[in-house]
Amino acid sequence: MTAATIPNPNQTSARAADPCVLVIFGAAGDLTKRLLMPAIYNLAQVKLLAQNFAIIGVAHTQLGQDDFRSKLRQEIHEFATVSVDDGLWRTLEQRLYYLAGEFQDAKTYQKLQQLLVQVDQDCGTGGNYLFYLATGANFFCDIATQLGAAKLTQEDNGHWRRVIVEKPFGHDLDSARALNKTLGSVLTERQIYRIDHYLGKETVQNILVFRFGNGLFEPIWNRNNIDCVQITVAETVGVESRGNFYEKTGAVRDMVQNHLFQLLAMMAMEPPTSFEADAVRDEKSKLLRSIQPLDAQSVIRGQYGEGNLNNTQVVAYRCEPRVAQDSTTETFAALKLTIDNWRWADVPFYLRTGKRLPKRVTEIAIQFKQVPSLLFHQTPLEQLTPNLLVIRIQPNEGIWLQFGAKIPGPTIRMGAVEMDFCYADYFGSTTSTGYETLLYDCMIGDATLFQRADNVELGWQVVNPILEHWQTVPPPNFPNYTAGMWGPQAADDLLSRDGRQWRTPDR
Amino acid sequence: MTAATIPNPNQTSARAADPCVLVIFGAAGDLTKRLLMPAIYNLAQVKLLAQNFAIIGVAHTQLGQDDFRSKLRQEIHEFATVSVDDGLWRTLEQRLYYLAGEFQDAKTYQKLQQLLVQVDQDCGTGGNYLFYLATGANFFCDIATQLGAAKLTQEDNGHWRRVIVEKPFGHDLDSARALNKTLGSVLTERQIYRIDHYLGKETVQNILVFRFGNGLFEPIWNRNNIDCVQITVAETVGVESRGNFYEKTGAVRDMVQNHLFQLLAMMAMEPPTSFEADAVRDEKSKLLRSIQPLDAQSVIRGQYGEGNLNNTQVVAYRCEPRVAQDSTTETFAALKLTIDNWRWADVPFYLRTGKRLPKRVTEIAIQFKQVPSLLFHQTPLEQLTPNLLVIRIQPNEGIWLQFGAKIPGPTIRMGAVEMDFCYADYFGSTTSTGYETLLYDCMIGDATLFQRADNVELGWQVVNPILEHWQTVPPPNFPNYTAGMWGPQAADDLLSRDGRQWRTPDR
Repeated sequence: MTAATIPNPNQTSARAADPCVLVIFGAAGDLTKRLLMPAIYNLAQVKLLAQNFAIIGVAHTQLGQDDFRSKLRQEIHEFATVSVDDGLWRTLEQRLYYLAGEFQDAKTYQKLQQLLVQVDQDCGTGGNYLFYLATGANFFCDIATQLGAAKLTQEDNGHWRRVIVEKPFGHDLDSARALNKTLGSVLTERQIYRIDHYLGKETVQNILVFRFGNGLFEPIWNRNNIDCVQITVAETVGVESRGNFYEKTGAVRDMVQNHLFQLLAMMAMEPPTSFEADAVRDEKSKLLRSIQPLDAQSVIRGQYGEGNLNNTQVVAYRCEPRVAQDSTTETFAALKLTIDNWRWADVPFYLRTGKRLPKRVTEIAIQFKQVPSLLFHQTPLEQLTPNLLVIRIQPNEGIWLQFGAKIPGPTIRMGAVEMDFCYADYFGSTTSTGYETLLYDCMIGDATLFQRADNVELGWQVVNPILEHWQTVPPPNFPNYTAGMWGPQAADDLLSRDGRQWRTPDR
Repeated sequence: MTAATIPNPNQTSARAADPCVLVIFGAAGDLTKRLLMPAIYNLAQVKLLAQNFAIIGVAHTQLGQDDFRSKLRQEIHEFATVSVDDGLWRTLEQRLYYLAGEFQDAKTYQKLQQLLVQVDQDCGTGGNYLFYLATGANFFCDIATQLGAAKLTQEDNGHWRRVIVEKPFGHDLDSARALNKTLGSVLTERQIYRIDHYLGKETVQNILVFRFGNGLFEPIWNRNNIDCVQITVAETVGVESRGNFYEKTGAVRDMVQNHLFQLLAMMAMEPPTSFEADAVRDEKSKLLRSIQPLDAQSVIRGQYGEGNLNNTQVVAYRCEPRVAQDSTTETFAALKLTIDNWRWADVPFYLRTGKRLPKRVTEIAIQFKQVPSLLFHQTPLEQLTPNLLVIRIQPNEGIWLQFGAKIPGPTIRMGAVEMDFCYADYFGSTTSTGYETLLYDCMIGDATLFQRADNVELGWQVVNPILEHWQTVPPPNFPNYTAGMWGPQAADDLLSRDGRQWRTPDR
């Protein structure tokens, strides 16, 4: 046996990414300044960008190249996750270009084509282009079509062309299929990178390592030993300034179909033959395909009313800016899923997500079956707590295990105790935005952490009947939960019908 | 799911023990002052002693009753594990009696009989007698025989008579059988309590709770998932003043046949139908009976030479007081056992114990099998550490789990991380001597934590061929390990032959 090897996360053997131009559509927007540029900076810092790298920002804002550079320079100091080294930034800044233009206008793409040729010459980027659609979803089809028309998506002479698409991937099953069809008309599936930044989180990626790297857990990861699984993605924030967007979206579209289903798939899928893109995505699709059709009783919707959260009085959803006073949009959803395969048959998966919940937390809680209690007749039943394994995705990233131990004393009584593993204790607090891995992976052509067309459509297929049902049956009682509570009573009833209750994520 | 219930060890629902007289043979000795009296005091403090309780000390030292009381009063202040309340001590002290006499002399037992009648009257102890043989092993048979002859072991009119026998239980298989036979001629097995204070430790008792109270562990506790088990009982002390005793004993007799086999049995036995005495002891016997006969190659002996331990130069065993200059007594033993049953076939159990080792530690380390490594080809093999679960019996009582997690970064690399549970974090540091539970259990007639005749004999049966072999083949190379090292080279070779190595108990 060897002692624990504490690895150094800075000693990465990874090679620098391919030379390329990153073309950001929507470069004047929030995503670029808050997440993409800080992620690019972090990649540069650990030398994972190619020497021959450049960025072209495209947006309809009229800006000169120098204005763009000085805008990004100001913003990086505000949003970087590490302290900014001026020398390193200057090197990056010299490789920033800007193109003003409308996304629907063919002229924009002619200009882009010319600029790309010039940048390839200036920076030696070798004809590899990564197009990042950091725009509203309404532009995705137009941009893709125009890129295709301008032949910018065509790979030849050994260089690559890739497109990163931000979520949402469609608004329902039909629109997702239409988007995939449009993308597919100008790109092969291999060129399309549907990004869900949740999958860039270390703790999400660790789900697979934890499951398949530990002889201790995989053998018990099934219906023989697991009583139920609870996945919680809770936010304390309300709809904030996104009322306009959120009114058309709601919790199921915004969170369940993507984030929660991705967590579910990684928690429950079969072991892939490798961590390569299609091996992993094949298993995810198999898992999503095994979800039994939902009935209306198994899905609970909620909308927050006014309430008190962390000692602050907050308004009801219907009083938020750009929200209808009689809005029927759900800000909370809870589902009970069953997965009808050999591993999971009869194990309920409870999923919930919502805004204005008491705590910001994303976690997967796995409750194991109760042991035969015969041996512990001297322990009060409420102290016979079953084993509980919690994978904390955020915050306080880590893994937490509750198990039973003997309470000291002359009789055999059992009490619940805990073990805990915190990422930060081993690897320091993270400076990652979650986008580094995803950008880097795209630049080296690894699509493992991106969603494939069938993954996306399978997710919509599960929730679509519910969305359609809800459209015909308006919620009778919205708002139905007080801001600062764990959702509506019906969400508790969903579990108490099964003799269970939601875990309160207390740590 | 309910939050972890942190139990309060002081809230014990246990009843006070039966009224009785505790008769300690060897009351002037070390065991009485260091462990028995502090344990009795602790039991009194938590009100687990009967109101009607008394102690008679018997020893050959000539002492008056008042002398005995004041001796114990001085000693309790020195050896108590808690601060002594004078009022409580006074109550106890008034119930202390002393009888001077030879253990082999029938007159001693006549006087004892008279004193017991008087104490029953004075203290209302109701005729229940617990005889504690805290003497050298050479007196066990005599005392038992004399107690029988004086009819003090005879239970009638509803009162009980019990005998606690300290280890060693025999010197080999024949002497153990002879001792059991003598005890059995005057006592029923139900009246005999063979004490091994290791079994009174909370962490030892917790082995069963941990194994059978957690749905997470029992399903993987077998040959399908476990690669090997290592049990270490290491001492830093040398033979100290016990040379006389140790020369005739050695590590196998002193530690393996009792402590190590008890730990082994609790770690490896099948689930009992209850925690009652015979249910548990039946399973222990089954386990010991499944150990395959040892061959000479599977048992390593060692004796320490001079060396340096914690920056102190220490002498060789052969230079210790009352040790022969050409002593062949082993101060270290390492064994490889196989248990040929459905649960454990082909899983090696490595046991080791020794004096003058680098660290005082008792632990059971369970190494799980390596996972299929296909998925982790980017992780250097030495970082693919298998899961390791360590049950720390002492010191730093607790449970420690090593598992693999993703090292943050753009590639899938796994590193070993840890989770830890410390008893002290939950239950405070212990004030228990380890004897409280055992004394209390005996007073309420619960023999679960005591060894049954067949348990003892089965243990001897395993080691007897080795002891006999060693007697005919003197060790060729004693001393063969330097004080402060983890035993002789041959102990390392024992594992490296199997492609394994001893765990270094670093935490």
